Amino acid sequence: MSGGGGDPARQERLRALNLELVFRRLLAASDPVSRTELAAATGLTRPTITRIVEELIAGRLVTETGTTPAGRAGRPRMGLRLSRSGPAGLGLDIRTDGLAACVVDLTGTVRHLAFAPLDDPEAPAVLDRLGRMAVEAVEAATAEGLTVVTATLAVPGPTDGGIVRTAPALGWRSVDAGALLRERIGGLGLVCAVDNEANLAARGERHAAASGAPDDFVYVSGGLDIGAGIVLGGRPMRGSHGWGGELGHVTVDPDGKPCRCGARGCLQTYASLAAILGGEGVEAGTTPDAAVLAWADEGRPQTLAALDTAAHALGVALANVLNLFDIDTVLLGGSFAVLSSWLLAGVETELRQRVLSAAWAPIAVHPATLGPDAAAIGAAATVVDHIAADPAAWLAAQR
Amino acid sequence: MSGGGGDPARQERLRALNLELVFRRLLAASDPVSRTELAAATGLTRPTITRIVEELIAGRLVTETGTTPAGRAGRPRMGLRLSRSGPAGLGLDIRTDGLAACVVDLTGTVRHLAFAPLDDPEAPAVLDRLGRMAVEAVEAATAEGLTVVTATLAVPGPTDGGIVRTAPALGWRSVDAGALLRERIGGLGLVCAVDNEANLAARGERHAAASGAPDDFVYVSGGLDIGAGIVLGGRPMRGSHGWGGELGHVTVDPDGKPCRCGARGCLQTYASLAAILGGEGVEAGTTPDAAVLAWADEGRPQTLAALDTAAHALGVALANVLNLFDIDTVLLGGSFAVLSSWLLAGVETELRQRVLSAAWAPIAVHPATLGPDAAAIGAAATVVDHIAADPAAWLAAQR
Repeated sequence: MSGGGGDPARQERLRALNLELVFRRLLAASDPVSRTELAAATGLTRPTITRIVEELIAGRLVTETGTTPAGRAGRPRMGLRLSRSGPAGLGLDIRTDGLAACVVDLTGTVRHLAFAPLDDPEAPAVLDRLGRMAVEAVEAATAEGLTVVTATLAVPGPTDGGIVRTAPALGWRSVDAGALLRERIGGLGLVCAVDNEANLAARGERHAAASGAPDDFVYVSGGLDIGAGIVLGGRPMRGSHGWGGELGHVTVDPDGKPCRCGARGCLQTYASLAAILGGEGVEAGTTPDAAVLAWADEGRPQTLAALDTAAHALGVALANVLNLFDIDTVLLGGSFAVLSSWLLAGVETELRQRVLSAAWAPIAVHPATLGPDAAAIGAAATVVDHIAADPAAWLAAQR
Repeated sequence: MSGGGGDPARQERLRALNLELVFRRLLAASDPVSRTELAAATGLTRPTITRIVEELIAGRLVTETGTTPAGRAGRPRMGLRLSRSGPAGLGLDIRTDGLAACVVDLTGTVRHLAFAPLDDPEAPAVLDRLGRMAVEAVEAATAEGLTVVTATLAVPGPTDGGIVRTAPALGWRSVDAGALLRERIGGLGLVCAVDNEANLAARGERHAAASGAPDDFVYVSGGLDIGAGIVLGGRPMRGSHGWGGELGHVTVDPDGKPCRCGARGCLQTYASLAAILGGEGVEAGTTPDAAVLAWADEGRPQTLAALDTAAHALGVALANVLNLFDIDTVLLGGSFAVLSSWLLAGVETELRQRVLSAAWAPIAVHPATLGPDAAAIGAAATVVDHIAADPAAWLAAQR
């Protein structure tokens, strides 16, 4: 570090940093970019850009894509964009209404999406089914010329490495889901990870919204369990151990109904799908949120009352999030997205009353855009983070 | 960036980075460090270290301090530490029981501390008094050979640049405290800033605890108003606009007592000093928290009941913080530190019941160590951040 340019290790580090710089620039671009534009944006010389782009193309991270519109110089230029036939990520999600497997390419495009019912919530049975879905998804992606390199499992509860600490909706406690997954798909040679579904859904929403997503938002995941993915400065807020965002266990009324967690008056007891259903059975073939939506649209009084209770409780809990984190944007996801037209007014009333900064800074509450697939898509899209962390090392490993 | 070592701008940038590296290393050290140790810790060459240390000594950031104990090589070495007679920071704090002014040197040692009563809470009157205290503090520091370079004002409410959005304890709303401060002490040539008192107190606690402070903790500031400073990864969590940590307005009971903010059942209405006093008058010359402590020690039933209510409400609100942020350590500051022996049990009961991860990860609740001076000390100590952000630029500006 004390000067000089001849140290080979230093030169190698510089090459890797420059490669990362160019790759991140291409990641951030929504349209194809020319080599000249890359040189201008990164401050690297044209020969350096030419060499890096060759490496990225050879490694199947980037492709050329016809010509871009003429620049000021007048001559049309060859455009570069992330490859649609290079590495891809596999996302697996365990959710209220079943299991999902999803493959996303480097451009963020969903290339494969499959569902299966969740018949048996025991961990080995769930992982057996997901393992088969993973194999099918990888086969489908390979047939499209993709190479699946990561497998990320979304679970409805706090995780610790591969271990699911608790997932009350599944009845799981201290389940080593990472080991169970690797046992079943180890042969595929994928980098496996396990994360909380709300964190991954927030990742998916940010990825989907691309340049339009705010840097700071809270994604609320409704369903049998309620969770939140909190994004600050464009990055997930994970907390000390990765267990942040336990919105379902924020206290709405300290003397309220008992919650499965042992406490009283958790948001969970007012706004989970079970709480909204209030013991009503749902017809086979209908998801619980679709049933609630139909009843609400019919004007069933007990459903409307339950939704009103849920909306106000959700508003109280979210007001705490906004007061503590200083965030302006809320995305309602999962079953809250499905039911958002019945929830928005109640949520907004509480936020307006309870968030201190609402007096001078507006708050936006929207339904999330990806619907129930957000976590599976977000899980698959983490392949981009995996490669962008060190694209040079990734390319070297492919040789 | 494309290679070569001859570019003068690049060389300058490298020198600045190396200088920062060495300065941060000295900041992090609790004992004097030798040049040899600095070279080993930073990977820089001995001649580079020698040159940088010369610059730091000439700029009064660092001094030599006798010899350090012999290293493995056996020969005692000249130790280096941050200067106690170089730049210093001024902290000003508007708090429940009065105004404080404090000067801290680069080692974090408090070199001056003064108080004044808060007779008139109107902003111009408060700033007049603080302006006079600032002049006295700078004179005292100068007499000790220090050069005060920053002035940071701690206020009990959310700030935006120099503007205090609201400070209910003072009756302030949209007060440009930064401008009022600069009008009064502009002649001193200090870099002025305004920040929330809980954020600055958390900064002070982290600074005081040095290597012992955890990277993630929540500092709770009790008093007429309640706030929180949330530290994640060693850095304050500021949120989108710097208004994070509004713990006083976390909802404890949605149908609870009306709060000054317009909502109902805010923590404020159960656990502020006013709520604990419950309308009782306090003798002149006694601070409200000292009065409450004396009554509790006497066993006054209404005081004990109010403290019990406050403790459980604080526990409910803090459980929300811990569930959302995934933090394990709580420091009770301000009046909560004074009253901590009456609050701890109730707080801990609620946390044990309500924090999901408490089942498998222990939570620590302690009184804060700096007492009522935490915010003033933290405000003064920001001088270190100011210089460490770019020590090369700071040295250049001194020439």
